[in-house]
Amino acid sequence: MTAMIDLPTIEDVAAAAGRLAGSAVRTPLLENADLNARVGGRVLIKPETLQRTGSFKFRGAGNKIAKLMQAGQRPQTILAYSSGNHAQGVAAAARLAGLSALIVMPDDAPAIKIENTRALGAEIVFYDRRIDDREAITAGLLKERGGTLVRPYDDPDVIAGQGTVGLEIAEQALERGALVDHVLVPCGGGGLTAGIALALSGASPRTRVHPVEPEGFDDTRRSLATGKALGNEPGATSFCDALLAPRPGALTFALNSRLAGEGFAVTDAETTAAMAFAFRTLKLVVEPGGAVALAAVLAGKIDCRNRTICVVLSGANADPAIFCRAVGGLPPA
Amino acid sequence: MTAMIDLPTIEDVAAAAGRLAGSAVRTPLLENADLNARVGGRVLIKPETLQRTGSFKFRGAGNKIAKLMQAGQRPQTILAYSSGNHAQGVAAAARLAGLSALIVMPDDAPAIKIENTRALGAEIVFYDRRIDDREAITAGLLKERGGTLVRPYDDPDVIAGQGTVGLEIAEQALERGALVDHVLVPCGGGGLTAGIALALSGASPRTRVHPVEPEGFDDTRRSLATGKALGNEPGATSFCDALLAPRPGALTFALNSRLAGEGFAVTDAETTAAMAFAFRTLKLVVEPGGAVALAAVLAGKIDCRNRTICVVLSGANADPAIFCRAVGGLPPA
Repeated sequence: MTAMIDLPTIEDVAAAAGRLAGSAVRTPLLENADLNARVGGRVLIKPETLQRTGSFKFRGAGNKIAKLMQAGQRPQTILAYSSGNHAQGVAAAARLAGLSALIVMPDDAPAIKIENTRALGAEIVFYDRRIDDREAITAGLLKERGGTLVRPYDDPDVIAGQGTVGLEIAEQALERGALVDHVLVPCGGGGLTAGIALALSGASPRTRVHPVEPEGFDDTRRSLATGKALGNEPGATSFCDALLAPRPGALTFALNSRLAGEGFAVTDAETTAAMAFAFRTLKLVVEPGGAVALAAVLAGKIDCRNRTICVVLSGANADPAIFCRAVGGLPPA
Repeated sequence: MTAMIDLPTIEDVAAAAGRLAGSAVRTPLLENADLNARVGGRVLIKPETLQRTGSFKFRGAGNKIAKLMQAGQRPQTILAYSSGNHAQGVAAAARLAGLSALIVMPDDAPAIKIENTRALGAEIVFYDRRIDDREAITAGLLKERGGTLVRPYDDPDVIAGQGTVGLEIAEQALERGALVDHVLVPCGGGGLTAGIALALSGASPRTRVHPVEPEGFDDTRRSLATGKALGNEPGATSFCDALLAPRPGALTFALNSRLAGEGFAVTDAETTAAMAFAFRTLKLVVEPGGAVALAAVLAGKIDCRNRTICVVLSGANADPAIFCRAVGGLPPA
C-alpha cells in the first residue's frame, strides 16, 4: 500500500496471532439451528464475548504491549483512554506483562466496566464525556507521568491484534467446511472491522466485511458510502456505549475504505431485540454495542438466504440492569 | 456388567455419537482466566447451554429416536414427560425425524420451556405437580393414542446419548493438552452423570465423575454414599426446576453406583451466585439447574487447587425474571 501513514499488513496480523497464542482465548465459532432457520441461511457466530476481559479488545492491547516488550521496551506505565472495553483489555495485558496501567474513562461508563478495570489493577482517571477532551487529558497525563499510550483503534499494532479475529474466522470456517460470504462486525472507531478486513483479504479474499453501527453513530457507514471520512452529527444518543466514537480513525478508515464493503446502521430497538435473541436462543450474554451485527442480521439489513454469514459478537460487559431491561426481565428505564 | 437390567455400554455411547453427528452441536470446551485464578486450578467448562434446544437433553432424545428410525420403526407419536428440557429435546428430535411429539409437562414449568416446546411443534398435556402422577398420565395417553415413550433418563439409549458429552470432554481436553481429574455434572435423575461416567470409564479412566444436586434433592449423593437407592424427603423446595427428580433411576443408579465418585449438594443461594458469576465473568446464560456444578466449584465443595476440573453447564432455559433476579444479586422469589 502506498499511503503515507503506517498501515499494518497481513504479515502483522500473523505476527500478532503468534504473540497472542497462550494469552488470548481462541474463541469458538458457533452455529445455532434456530438462527439459521430464521434467516434462511447459515450464520456462523464468533463470540468475542468469551474473550479474556469479555471483549475483543484484549487482542489489540495484548499485541501492542507484547510487541513493546519484545522490542526491549519496558514502559513504566501503559496509558489508555477508553469507554470501558479497551480499558479492560489494556489493564489485563499490562498486568500480564507486569506493567502498571492508567486509564482515562468517562464517568458515565457502565459500572461493570469500571469495576472490572479496577479489579485488573489499573488506576482510573475519570472525565466528563460532555465537556472534557479525553485526548487532551491523556496527553497531559502522559507528559506528567511518562509511559506509553495504547490508542483504542488508530494504531497499527492494535489493528493487527484485532485482525486475529479474522484469521480465526477463516480457519474455523474452513474446519466446518464453510466458505463465508459476508462478515458483519460491530464498529466504533473501526479497528475490529479494519483488522478483520485486513486478515480476510489474505485468508479469505472472497469474503466481504461490513461494519455495523448504531443509528446516529454511523460515521463509518457514511464515510464508506461517500469515500470521505465524515464525523457524526452532534446530539445523537445510543445505549451502545462501546460504539460512540465521533469519527473514523485515520488508519482504520484508510484500511476500511480499501478493504471493507458497505456498512449498516441499526436502531437501539433492533439492538435490544438482538440482545434478547442472544439471551433466549443463543444463550449468550451480549452488551448493546456487541449485539449490533446480530441486530443487522435479525432486522434483515442483509439478505442471508442461501448464504454463509459470520456475525461477530464483540463484547459482553453489560450492567445487569441494562441487560435485564433488554431481555425483558425488567421494565424499561 | 452382570446386572439383570439392560445397561448401556461404552460402545453404545460411541454409536450414539455417530447417530448424533450433524444434528447435535459439538459444544466447545471453554476456559476462563478469572475462574482459573479464583479457584487456583484449571477449570474446563462444557457449555451444553449452547446445545440445540439449550440443554444436553437433545442428545439422549436424538439418539433414542434416531435408533428407532434406523431399526425401521416409525412410531406415530413420540411421548415424553418432562419438566421442560427433555420436552424440548424430544420435540426437536421428533421434528427432525418427521414424527409428532406429545409431552406431559407440569403446569408450573418455566414459561420459556413451555413456549419453546410448543414452538418445536409438540402437543403439550399439563398436570399438577403436587397432586397428579405424571407417569400414570403418560401411561394413559400411551394406551389411548399409541406411540413410543422416551423416558427422561431411565433408558439405555437416552443415557448413551447423554454420554456423548463425556466423549467430547475427553477428546477436547486432549486437544488442549489437559488431563481431567474431576468432572462435575448437574444431576436430576442421573442420566447425564451416568452417560458421562460411562463414556469416561473408557475414554479417560483416570477421571472421576461427580453428580451435583440442589440441597433437599440430593438423592443421588445420599444413595452413592450409602450404596442404596434413596428417595428425597418430601417438602423440600428448590428453584432448580430441572433437577427435582424424586429418586435415582434404576439404570442410572446401577451405572452411577459403579462408575461415579461422591456427590455434592449446593444451596439455592450458591446456585444463584454461580448464575451471576456465569453472567458477569463467563458471559454465559445458565438456568438454575444448569449452574449447580459451577456452584459446587465456586463454593469450594471440591478442592480445585493444582487440579484440572471440568464443569458441565447443562442447561440455559431460564425465564428472564428468574435469571435477572439471580444476576442482580437478589434472592429467588
